Amino acid sequence: MTVVSIKSLLAGRVAQGSEVEVRGWIRSRRDSKGGFSFLALHDGSAQAAIQVVAPGELANYQADVLRLTAGCSVIAKGVLVESQGKGQSFEIQASGIEVCGWVDDPDTYPIAKKRHSFEYLRTVAHLRPRTNTFGATTRVRTVLANAVHRYFYEREFQWINTPLITASDCEGAGEMFRVSTLDLMNLPRTEQGAVDFGADFFGKEAFLTVSGQLNAEAYCLAMSKVYTFGPTFRAENSNTSRHLAEFWMVEPEIAFANLDDDAALAEDFLRYLLTQVLENCEDDLAFFNQFVDEGVLARAQKVASTPFERMDYGDAIKILEKSGKKFEYPVRWGLDMQSEHERYLCEEHVGGPLIVTNYPKDIKAFYMRLNDDGKTVAAMDVLAPGIGEIIGGAQREERLDVLDMRMAEQGLEGLEWYRDLRRYGTVAHAGFGLGFERLLNYITGMENIRDAIPFPRTPKHADY
Amino acid sequence: MTVVSIKSLLAGRVAQGSEVEVRGWIRSRRDSKGGFSFLALHDGSAQAAIQVVAPGELANYQADVLRLTAGCSVIAKGVLVESQGKGQSFEIQASGIEVCGWVDDPDTYPIAKKRHSFEYLRTVAHLRPRTNTFGATTRVRTVLANAVHRYFYEREFQWINTPLITASDCEGAGEMFRVSTLDLMNLPRTEQGAVDFGADFFGKEAFLTVSGQLNAEAYCLAMSKVYTFGPTFRAENSNTSRHLAEFWMVEPEIAFANLDDDAALAEDFLRYLLTQVLENCEDDLAFFNQFVDEGVLARAQKVASTPFERMDYGDAIKILEKSGKKFEYPVRWGLDMQSEHERYLCEEHVGGPLIVTNYPKDIKAFYMRLNDDGKTVAAMDVLAPGIGEIIGGAQREERLDVLDMRMAEQGLEGLEWYRDLRRYGTVAHAGFGLGFERLLNYITGMENIRDAIPFPRTPKHADY
Repeated sequence: MTVVSIKSLLAGRVAQGSEVEVRGWIRSRRDSKGGFSFLALHDGSAQAAIQVVAPGELANYQADVLRLTAGCSVIAKGVLVESQGKGQSFEIQASGIEVCGWVDDPDTYPIAKKRHSFEYLRTVAHLRPRTNTFGATTRVRTVLANAVHRYFYEREFQWINTPLITASDCEGAGEMFRVSTLDLMNLPRTEQGAVDFGADFFGKEAFLTVSGQLNAEAYCLAMSKVYTFGPTFRAENSNTSRHLAEFWMVEPEIAFANLDDDAALAEDFLRYLLTQVLENCEDDLAFFNQFVDEGVLARAQKVASTPFERMDYGDAIKILEKSGKKFEYPVRWGLDMQSEHERYLCEEHVGGPLIVTNYPKDIKAFYMRLNDDGKTVAAMDVLAPGIGEIIGGAQREERLDVLDMRMAEQGLEGLEWYRDLRRYGTVAHAGFGLGFERLLNYITGMENIRDAIPFPRTPKHADY
Repeated sequence: MTVVSIKSLLAGRVAQGSEVEVRGWIRSRRDSKGGFSFLALHDGSAQAAIQVVAPGELANYQADVLRLTAGCSVIAKGVLVESQGKGQSFEIQASGIEVCGWVDDPDTYPIAKKRHSFEYLRTVAHLRPRTNTFGATTRVRTVLANAVHRYFYEREFQWINTPLITASDCEGAGEMFRVSTLDLMNLPRTEQGAVDFGADFFGKEAFLTVSGQLNAEAYCLAMSKVYTFGPTFRAENSNTSRHLAEFWMVEPEIAFANLDDDAALAEDFLRYLLTQVLENCEDDLAFFNQFVDEGVLARAQKVASTPFERMDYGDAIKILEKSGKKFEYPVRWGLDMQSEHERYLCEEHVGGPLIVTNYPKDIKAFYMRLNDDGKTVAAMDVLAPGIGEIIGGAQREERLDVLDMRMAEQGLEGLEWYRDLRRYGTVAHAGFGLGFERLLNYITGMENIRDAIPFPRTPKHADY
């Protein structure tokens, strides 16, 4: 008797006629007039359930099998046989059904019904992975995350676990979460009456990071090719379908590289990820394509197989100005592009993925490399049909004097350690950031980013 | 001209006679009386540097090459040839050396000297990856992390990103960091004068998590096999070589599994990881074995190849009592074991890795499964020679009535969602936790856990 996953069974990895044991949860039960029952059993390993035929001769047929409801956990033993029914190749002719756990009051089981709104399912985030949709999301997420690591590992990148807690005073603390062990009912004070963070755990005010990039740069300038893949945080009080307070971000950083190299890496990386998901999540993508967004398969195939166009920001603005389209937000050189502009460019103008480069310096961060025109920086955004910006990156300013000037312009001080990287063996280097949940939404067609992460954190919500 | 990593060159993946371009940082320069220079160039991809022979005929030989010092970044082009010198198979006969970045005032370059104390290097954490030791640590860390993901991926586990921010009131908030956006100079108050966390970002008091286990259980009871691999936090004010405020933890959780299955998984996993590092980090492990701890290679080989013994906690206590050893801490049934006890058991008594099972319930967490004796729980610790406990795990209490009793005993309330998992299709399940930095220290022989993570966070330290 071999314990097997339903995924292995459905993939044909077990010979017909084998004695097998499968373990999982009942999705549905259907009783035949012939005195036996069909059980749909799933175990999370695959989109599909396996059909288990429970004969009336089982000793516990009346006592147990006929009482099974959705969500009960069972261990089924039997022989793998060719299925006579439609929709599956194999089924299990059971010789034993052991019930491990019942469902308390099946009528009030929170996910008993077949269809629930995603909004409702967020209120039972501990049970929603038992649904088709969230099981599929979980599997695609795992395949995607592993593809991220594999891509970089095979290309000799080092994975750098940059710190989550930071006391860097340079990253716009307004939208950061404070991390503290101070007793709020008895706050230590300085002589001037301010809060004395010297008495806090880290000896100064500390926050949750918004990006691992600056830290990753330090390792990039020693190891040549690095990436981060970890949680980042925004304390933005935004209740939209695109904002999470806690989300995962991928940030590669490469040395001896300019903006062209960066764009090439972003394109290759994104196409690799989509290819991997297309190859390894066939059933789950088919599910999303059928029930969530019928465009997802074609879109993923398109992005995976189409070379990305490249366009200068200045040209992009001209195209938008000449487009004759009525946009909600203004279009003018010097302004940032909104989602409607990005989507027009890649969906209507180019008809595919697009990398826009060289944005005005005043709308970009201090660490992006100043171009020779003195007005733009070597920044890029990767725009994809159906979503707009999916990756943002830049060549970094490697010249200490220019970096100092840019920091002064933006009123930034400190970061001596970051300046050191330009004092000691500085090189051209570049990198980008990819929001992992945003990409997962793009691939699955799920609209709300709260449905792309197991336990979403948003304003007023940190349950479970 | 192909751009190649030094790792590829040293591995013999490039044919001799090829024109190559390598990019990296100077480790040392030695000038020959013959009017040429030997440059040791490293790029972080491998432990070793590649020797670049820069002939005096280079146009910038006098102006640039002879000024090169440790840490300068260069691009070297030339032909890969067999090396005449000792200690390397290949070298590059340079046809061009381009200097990208100089070192400001080489005499004060913080890591100019060859040997620095690890303590000093922590004060230049942004530059220490440029040293042999921290370059090696970074590479082993990457190999180990990828082995973690690969192990689980190949065995159909789902990677679950459990939340970092938690409002669960059940996890011993005393050692947790508070996460907040409240204005400390103007704290909102309830009518009773307490801090009004209802006005905080999450609408209640929120903390950084100490473990993803409870959340992982919810996914385990839907997907069968899951794991977390992410940051966890302790606000413990401990300045020891074994404590970090922020560290990474691996936590698998398996359904339809008891303590035996859990122990088997822990053993198989640990042996796999060591095998992978032995196979993929040969040069770096040789470095650690030579310069840091000459026992590391033999230890890793031993653990990778030795079946783990198993022992009941009760038997372990009897062995300790009869050992005749003078221990600093008392030995008695009902007390937790200290590192000295754990190390005696595996190093002196067993002479190899050991899994101790069935600990007294009063020293273990509420969620561990109560054994039939009513006194012990199905917990386990994996003990390894040279370090003691390396993994801690347990079968979880899957029976709602027993769980409720255990929670009441420990004065815990709430966690309705966690109780739900026992109300709906509960099954035997188990899991464990592995501190990633602790394992990395074990493998590399590095003694201080602050040297196992890129930017350590400890009391009074959140720099960089």
